Amino acid sequence: MKITIIGVGLIGGSMALKLKSAGLVSYVFGVDQNENHLAEAKNLGIIDEISSLENAVSQSELIIIAIPVDAARKILPNILDLVNETQTVMDAGSTKAGIVDAIKKHPQRNRFVAFHPMWGTENSGPKSAISESFSGRAAVICDRENSAPDALKTVENVAENLDMHLIYMSSEDHDLHTAYISHISHITSYALANTVLEKEREEDTIFQLASSGFSSTVRLAKSHPEMWVPIFKQNKENVLDVLNEHISQLRKFKSALEKENYELLEELIRNANKIRGILDK
Amino acid sequence: MKITIIGVGLIGGSMALKLKSAGLVSYVFGVDQNENHLAEAKNLGIIDEISSLENAVSQSELIIIAIPVDAARKILPNILDLVNETQTVMDAGSTKAGIVDAIKKHPQRNRFVAFHPMWGTENSGPKSAISESFSGRAAVICDRENSAPDALKTVENVAENLDMHLIYMSSEDHDLHTAYISHISHITSYALANTVLEKEREEDTIFQLASSGFSSTVRLAKSHPEMWVPIFKQNKENVLDVLNEHISQLRKFKSALEKENYELLEELIRNANKIRGILDK
Repeated sequence: MKITIIGVGLIGGSMALKLKSAGLVSYVFGVDQNENHLAEAKNLGIIDEISSLENAVSQSELIIIAIPVDAARKILPNILDLVNETQTVMDAGSTKAGIVDAIKKHPQRNRFVAFHPMWGTENSGPKSAISESFSGRAAVICDRENSAPDALKTVENVAENLDMHLIYMSSEDHDLHTAYISHISHITSYALANTVLEKEREEDTIFQLASSGFSSTVRLAKSHPEMWVPIFKQNKENVLDVLNEHISQLRKFKSALEKENYELLEELIRNANKIRGILDK
Repeated sequence: MKITIIGVGLIGGSMALKLKSAGLVSYVFGVDQNENHLAEAKNLGIIDEISSLENAVSQSELIIIAIPVDAARKILPNILDLVNETQTVMDAGSTKAGIVDAIKKHPQRNRFVAFHPMWGTENSGPKSAISESFSGRAAVICDRENSAPDALKTVENVAENLDMHLIYMSSEDHDLHTAYISHISHITSYALANTVLEKEREEDTIFQLASSGFSSTVRLAKSHPEMWVPIFKQNKENVLDVLNEHISQLRKFKSALEKENYELLEELIRNANKIRGILDK
């Protein structure tokens, strides 16, 4: 099948590579505002043709939107204007309530499938794309009842070819869950990086010392604002709820230490250790 | 050379394996309160002989203390009572001011070298020991002026055989820096795990969703309280300073979101991104 990738970066690029190597996709049109990314994606064999949006959509069975969530929300109605009853549109964004709300009255709403592959790195651009990125990971489809059965089937087939296992939920539930297991991790990493940069700006030693523990907790702080500001903006209420809870959890550690209540400190840590059983399930 | 490892767990075990394979060490006495760990360490070839403390020390050129920092602080004076002018004692703990304070007036103070290899995982026990763990990482020696030149040389030779690069600093500086680049990371991971466990206790979905970003920020939350409560206790003042700063950094994100000040949010993220250049140096 011929497809269009809008946004030939980390996610769009990785999907194109994998879907081609799996044999599901024979030809990829690349659409992007960034001309360097388009040229790189062409050179890397991620896309077969650099194209305008209209030309690409008119020749594609499937259109994949893989750009920041605010831009995706803006462009989706225009794409639905261009597609017919045999074409499918999907996204790959980290927030869902906003994008589905923007098209809820669109006559072609049912050609869209809200999709979120649960994978990413702190890197961006087509050079970061990796074919096997998604293997074994979860992907979410939201509000499947609002998509046409054949469109849903196309996207389920994409997920299968990406070697992902599917989870179905509402957009609202998706945005709540991702606030907990993805968005808050980014905020804590950013804040941790800023904490260290603030206090240790005169010091070189600390960076020689940085252990693997530090690197792993602060890794996400390398992620770009172009992607993450729109996510926090679109998921503001959920992110604020989780952030408030997180600050209050940190205050428990602070209070236990200040009061030298080491029994409480141990209890807080033992409780946190339960994440082992759950993550390793 | 014959050595004693007190605490045949992740750190002590990994050091023994590497020092044997590097050819520096020919025989290892293992001392531990945990008899299962001793038996496992013997089976795994980490130690050659299970021994009492007195017997082991009397036959060893080097004694390595690799137990939780509170226990290390307690046992060190007793070990110094047992050693002569040709033996060296080193530790591997994550806090330093407490342990050197405990022996500052000991007549054998100069047989001790305060050592901290900047490596660890969330796992523990001899089964987690890995020979190549330390390669390429930093190790710190504190207050070298208080150690005898030959003792210092022995420990520098150990670091070289572990394939680590050495950094020298005072105990006080060490404890401040590790608060920033290791201890706070653990607290944020614990608090993040508790945040998720608190709010999502009824939900299974979230754990299916858990992405690689979540796993990497929350990995350290698997670390045991037996090791970490004593570290937080001994480094209380520094950890509280950093924790306060971290909470205030998180409040900046909260305030930017609440006020929908997305320029500020972007600025906070761009600042955090600077960690990339520093970590990747």
